[in-house]
Amino acid sequence: MNFHIIKRTIGWLLLFEAMFFLVPIITAIVYSEREIVSFLVTMSICIALGLVCLLGKPKSEYMYAKEGLVIVSLSWIVISIFGALPFWLSGAIPSFVDALFETVSGFTTTGATIIATGAQVAALPKCMLMWRSFTHWVGGMGVLVLIMAFLPLSGARNMHIMRAESPGPTVDKLVPRVKTTAKVLYSIYLVMTLLEFIMLLCGGMSCFEALSCAFSTAGTGGFSWNAEGMGVYSSYLQVVVTVFMILFSINFNSYYLVLRGKIKDAFSTEVRAFLIITILAISAIAINIYLTSGDLYNYSIGEAIKHSAFSVGSIISTTGFTTENFDLWPAFSKAILVILMFIGACAGSTGGGIKVSRWLILGKGVIYELKMMLHPKQVRKISIDKRPVESETVRAVSSYLVAYILIYIASMLIVSLDCPDLETNFTAVAATINNVGPGLSAVGPAGSYAFFSDVSKLVFVFDMLVGRLEVFPMLLLFTPATWKKQ
Amino acid sequence: MNFHIIKRTIGWLLLFEAMFFLVPIITAIVYSEREIVSFLVTMSICIALGLVCLLGKPKSEYMYAKEGLVIVSLSWIVISIFGALPFWLSGAIPSFVDALFETVSGFTTTGATIIATGAQVAALPKCMLMWRSFTHWVGGMGVLVLIMAFLPLSGARNMHIMRAESPGPTVDKLVPRVKTTAKVLYSIYLVMTLLEFIMLLCGGMSCFEALSCAFSTAGTGGFSWNAEGMGVYSSYLQVVVTVFMILFSINFNSYYLVLRGKIKDAFSTEVRAFLIITILAISAIAINIYLTSGDLYNYSIGEAIKHSAFSVGSIISTTGFTTENFDLWPAFSKAILVILMFIGACAGSTGGGIKVSRWLILGKGVIYELKMMLHPKQVRKISIDKRPVESETVRAVSSYLVAYILIYIASMLIVSLDCPDLETNFTAVAATINNVGPGLSAVGPAGSYAFFSDVSKLVFVFDMLVGRLEVFPMLLLFTPATWKKQ
Repeated sequence: MNFHIIKRTIGWLLLFEAMFFLVPIITAIVYSEREIVSFLVTMSICIALGLVCLLGKPKSEYMYAKEGLVIVSLSWIVISIFGALPFWLSGAIPSFVDALFETVSGFTTTGATIIATGAQVAALPKCMLMWRSFTHWVGGMGVLVLIMAFLPLSGARNMHIMRAESPGPTVDKLVPRVKTTAKVLYSIYLVMTLLEFIMLLCGGMSCFEALSCAFSTAGTGGFSWNAEGMGVYSSYLQVVVTVFMILFSINFNSYYLVLRGKIKDAFSTEVRAFLIITILAISAIAINIYLTSGDLYNYSIGEAIKHSAFSVGSIISTTGFTTENFDLWPAFSKAILVILMFIGACAGSTGGGIKVSRWLILGKGVIYELKMMLHPKQVRKISIDKRPVESETVRAVSSYLVAYILIYIASMLIVSLDCPDLETNFTAVAATINNVGPGLSAVGPAGSYAFFSDVSKLVFVFDMLVGRLEVFPMLLLFTPATWKKQ
Repeated sequence: MNFHIIKRTIGWLLLFEAMFFLVPIITAIVYSEREIVSFLVTMSICIALGLVCLLGKPKSEYMYAKEGLVIVSLSWIVISIFGALPFWLSGAIPSFVDALFETVSGFTTTGATIIATGAQVAALPKCMLMWRSFTHWVGGMGVLVLIMAFLPLSGARNMHIMRAESPGPTVDKLVPRVKTTAKVLYSIYLVMTLLEFIMLLCGGMSCFEALSCAFSTAGTGGFSWNAEGMGVYSSYLQVVVTVFMILFSINFNSYYLVLRGKIKDAFSTEVRAFLIITILAISAIAINIYLTSGDLYNYSIGEAIKHSAFSVGSIISTTGFTTENFDLWPAFSKAILVILMFIGACAGSTGGGIKVSRWLILGKGVIYELKMMLHPKQVRKISIDKRPVESETVRAVSSYLVAYILIYIASMLIVSLDCPDLETNFTAVAATINNVGPGLSAVGPAGSYAFFSDVSKLVFVFDMLVGRLEVFPMLLLFTPATWKKQ
């Protein structure tokens, strides 16, 4: 293990995080909030520690996949711990575990909150709210991808880190150089966020609201900045957010292909599958909630479609915004939403979940198996978009699913010591490991994660990181063999 | 597709089923029940149809894996349809869908019932109760395995059928000839059932009770023959049943190895893992329910261990007997029981679920993946019990898991149209696809599957068959390519 290179990367990370704090600091200046102090203190700590980490020349620049995975998992833990400090130091969130939960939930773009009520959220200082939303934006595309776009790191090193931090079973380099790929991705990300920001301003949101909302949507995070969620805004604004939630959960490679005029290639199998699933889910839920309208909710057909589209977009993109309390909807609609949590977004997007491309590979594996039983001699390789899927990828995706299931089961078991309700436990783990945010029942749109014990909250913190970093980086961190000298 | 050979096998199957009816017929004679008529009628139909199917010489004896899989899935559907006739003809179960559910639940050794209350179960004629329990015994070891033990079929044909009907990721031939293997397995099965029968008689059960209980335990089925379940019997009888439930969920190869004096080999990795999981689960639940004793249940430490052992043995073996209503236990204990449903028994036993050996292969796959990330150049093959696991087996097991999950999700979605409670839906599918029987909430030990619609019941019928035949035979049956002429 090349500890030196890990230390240096963490050093850079801390300096970048110090820079991120400028966003809430400016907000605090605008609203003259005294919580600016906690950000300034944390910023100073980050700069000091970061510079210490950067002292000394590395003996060697070598780096294998192992180092890439460890750097990514450690970076996310470090950035979350320092990101939690302002909440804790200012007293906005008195418990450090709670502050850590909130920050991890932010960076992993989960959007699950330990703040018990909407009113308490709205009562937070504006700079704190802005920091919460901004963590979504930073975490969405990945902080190390950002660092790579600016720092002069070697190509091999970049690729290992990029592979570990980017969502999805495989990573496509858009251009030969990883550094340039990172720049292209962040540029698209920035432009799309800006576009949403302007469209939200046009719809009458304040600058603060539009910025918070754009950050939250772009990272597919879902933290709210008011007491009532998205329900208080106009239909225009809800539709804009619906569209952008879906746009941000599509593989960013597609946008690059569109920019280069390759419209047909942009609609890859994964994107088409994602859109078909989205449309089917919206239709099924819209019909279901329209037909069951009654005392708890009463929708015209138009409202049913709007609320269904918003909820489906919010859940499949793993954002977690809500216009309506879908916990009141019939079991069929709720079941669809829970299934969407597990499907997740496209690979290479800011969304979470297992990812459509993984399900495509897994599904093709089943079809392959059936074909082998019918015609064992006519073996064809699994392929997607006319490109063969390597058997190592298939194996890695299967192992991912198994590890995911095992972590899921262990989490549910620990959490069930806290809470008697299976539906709450099951969907709380689903909503955190898939980086969605709200689940059903006690953790539904009207609830929060406040009532769980610290142990359960730390389990959720682990699950959110496992979900965002896609299992293996976090598993390796806890494998003794990773730390053995060779 | 060699249709002729399929027709002939179904013919033999019907003749065997006609013979099975002798068990309830004798019971009806002993208790002078007039429902004997329905069994005699069905028996005649089976004999007539069976003989018709056997008419004509097959053009060719060739058979591939495809035919083996189709024969097995068709056989199980045919035997269930004819097995349901007596319930329906006699009016004991007025709806044919209900009768089919009950019979499939019997043959697949699930033990889920559509009979709403224990009192209604107890009110059934003795011959019907005996037929219910006997279907467990027939289904446990597999009806085609039984046919193979007696009929002069070709070796290749035998192997294809055996592989498709036996539970587990791989099939070990105990002896070179499949026919002899089938005989050995059934002999062990018969002797162990007899042993339990005698021990139950010694504990004061009537001959009818002891026989029903032995059939139900041996097949790891779980149908009850009285109003109160196992709770009314003495501790001695409960302990005997606990021990036998666990014994019948251990790979039968182990017993063969014990008989041949290879005690050490008998404790394979799978058997050891199974026993460790069982002991851990018993301890955890015993402590949990002892510490939370209160108004709903109040256990001494001895009672806590006894009830925990019985429930764990019942669920991990996928039998489904109950002494206590574990739906009242705390969430932690219930979560463990739900997890045990998915773990299931050992391969090559009469138990259901995903099977311990599959989890071992899947778990080793994750470790393999982690090792590949740490030391990509030192690749070692996955091995269990010092024998390498073929990569085709690993691939097949992964595909099995994915297909299982997809069927699970689709089932939950359909069932959720019937029932508003996620816990009920989730555990109902879990209890049927894993061939357990009782779930939680409305399908808990105090509930039944009576309230579901016919559509949901047919979904459960499909799930029970999918679980017993381990996914692929049922999937192939619904794959159009299977039926295409080549």
